[in-house]
Amino acid sequence: MTRSEHSAAGVALAIHGGAGRIVRERVGSSRDRALRDVVAEILREGLARLEAGGSALDAAQLAVARLEDDPQFNAGRGSALTSAGDVEMDAALMDGRTRAAGAVACVRGVRNPIALARALLDDGRHVLLAGEGAERFARERGIALAPRAWLVTSERERELASARAGGRVSLDRDEPGALGTVGAVARDRRGHLAAATSTGGMTNQLPGRIGDSPILGAGTWADDASCAVSATGHGESFLRAAFAHEVDAAMRLAALPLRAACEAALARVAALGGSGGCIALAATGDPVAVFATPGMVRGWSSEGAQPFVALYADES
Amino acid sequence: MTRSEHSAAGVALAIHGGAGRIVRERVGSSRDRALRDVVAEILREGLARLEAGGSALDAAQLAVARLEDDPQFNAGRGSALTSAGDVEMDAALMDGRTRAAGAVACVRGVRNPIALARALLDDGRHVLLAGEGAERFARERGIALAPRAWLVTSERERELASARAGGRVSLDRDEPGALGTVGAVARDRRGHLAAATSTGGMTNQLPGRIGDSPILGAGTWADDASCAVSATGHGESFLRAAFAHEVDAAMRLAALPLRAACEAALARVAALGGSGGCIALAATGDPVAVFATPGMVRGWSSEGAQPFVALYADES
Repeated sequence: MTRSEHSAAGVALAIHGGAGRIVRERVGSSRDRALRDVVAEILREGLARLEAGGSALDAAQLAVARLEDDPQFNAGRGSALTSAGDVEMDAALMDGRTRAAGAVACVRGVRNPIALARALLDDGRHVLLAGEGAERFARERGIALAPRAWLVTSERERELASARAGGRVSLDRDEPGALGTVGAVARDRRGHLAAATSTGGMTNQLPGRIGDSPILGAGTWADDASCAVSATGHGESFLRAAFAHEVDAAMRLAALPLRAACEAALARVAALGGSGGCIALAATGDPVAVFATPGMVRGWSSEGAQPFVALYADES
Repeated sequence: MTRSEHSAAGVALAIHGGAGRIVRERVGSSRDRALRDVVAEILREGLARLEAGGSALDAAQLAVARLEDDPQFNAGRGSALTSAGDVEMDAALMDGRTRAAGAVACVRGVRNPIALARALLDDGRHVLLAGEGAERFARERGIALAPRAWLVTSERERELASARAGGRVSLDRDEPGALGTVGAVARDRRGHLAAATSTGGMTNQLPGRIGDSPILGAGTWADDASCAVSATGHGESFLRAAFAHEVDAAMRLAALPLRAACEAALARVAALGGSGGCIALAATGDPVAVFATPGMVRGWSSEGAQPFVALYADES
């Protein structure tokens, strides 16, 4: 798809459910189908909202909330467990119109961390809130809570047991079953962009660890003037590469097109030994997915174009 | 000072103690003198270490630890208080050699948050650790603790009472007495850069709030290939501008010299309604301080050059 074809003024939505060792023989055919159905359904729903005039911010938030609720992904319900056996969730939401943002980290007992990030964005006082303070803010704002028993899945408990036994800190993508960090980028009718990312972090990570997902400029960035980006992968490397802002800067300061900017930024992550990927939208709404892993759960939909859904690197 | 004069291969150290409403009539002559003495002493000590072959990382860390221990500054002892009356401290340390980093947020009861950030950097598993998890890591690593009574000053308690009465969330720089966020950037004999920043945040901020200081790419950045940066100011705006990484990107991708890169990045903060400033070193060791406030506590020292110490905007 080129910029001139059809998307120069259209709405668009792209989502991801993590990059990693997503290969056919590990996923299996029934799960393959189920995942594609979930991605397609969220795209359909989100694009309909955007076509009806909904904001990019709402579309990105709602797509991520859907992925958080799905226990297959490492965000919200189904989050990876810390070394203490807790669910600690991170999320960020950024509005490309003003670069206003809300982000939360190390949050427990909240059903949709992305809804809490949105409440913080709307509140406007602070951009990033962590831990008990964020949980208190959630209660004060009437954000839906969820008991630990609802958030934790037996699959994640097995993963933690296995990681503990092996002394490993594991990214979701190293695990056979569960999938990754989730994210969404959207462009609305008025040409505004937004980005949202949500994660449960790494299995067996130290309590209190924050990765790139809730950090503006690392895992999440949106600016109408350049792009919207949501990343997934080895958070520490994405932080040390200031990944999402590197994509923005490469477009804005070095005039790279979106795909080349994502590739250049990902090369800086790889140079630090990290892997992962991102989805991104240009100001025009053109979507890209760039990743350096065997697969990435991803899909996008633009006005007037066929939706695209894929899991493996060889699909395009 | 131009690059060619004397610093092309020399060691250098620059430090700051916050930017804000630092004007002669508010500071007063005895405090003016005391502040200059503190800054000069830390520079002397740090430069001696660097001249003796010490690393930029150690020099930046130790300069910040000295500023944390000084109750005049808003970091470590003398930190601003949250709306709950707590001290919650943030700090980050980044090594320009590898872009390895350690950062901590919302930490209570630790004497030197920058020492905890260093322990995390040395540990190598995670880049950013917050709250109770970070406090547990501090205890496990034998990081020096400090009781609340030692960290809290009566001046900060008065500020909180005043902010509560006025319903304000105040940056240190809005307050008559206490000074700001602290930071240091250094270049060592081997040409490596490092950056360190530490803060107590804003008076009357929500518990759990994290500003730009501990966020790589926002308040702190170091890369031997471009620059080392430590920022201070309205954290939310610096986060939304990805300030420190914008400085780096403007040098690396748009070939701006350091001062122009800092000015361009600060203009992006100002466009969001934020103010503040930074100190920075180029790869050559040339120091700059760029700020858009009436004053900034700052100073630098390079091998073979007279140390420079200043408080007000009209000093250069």
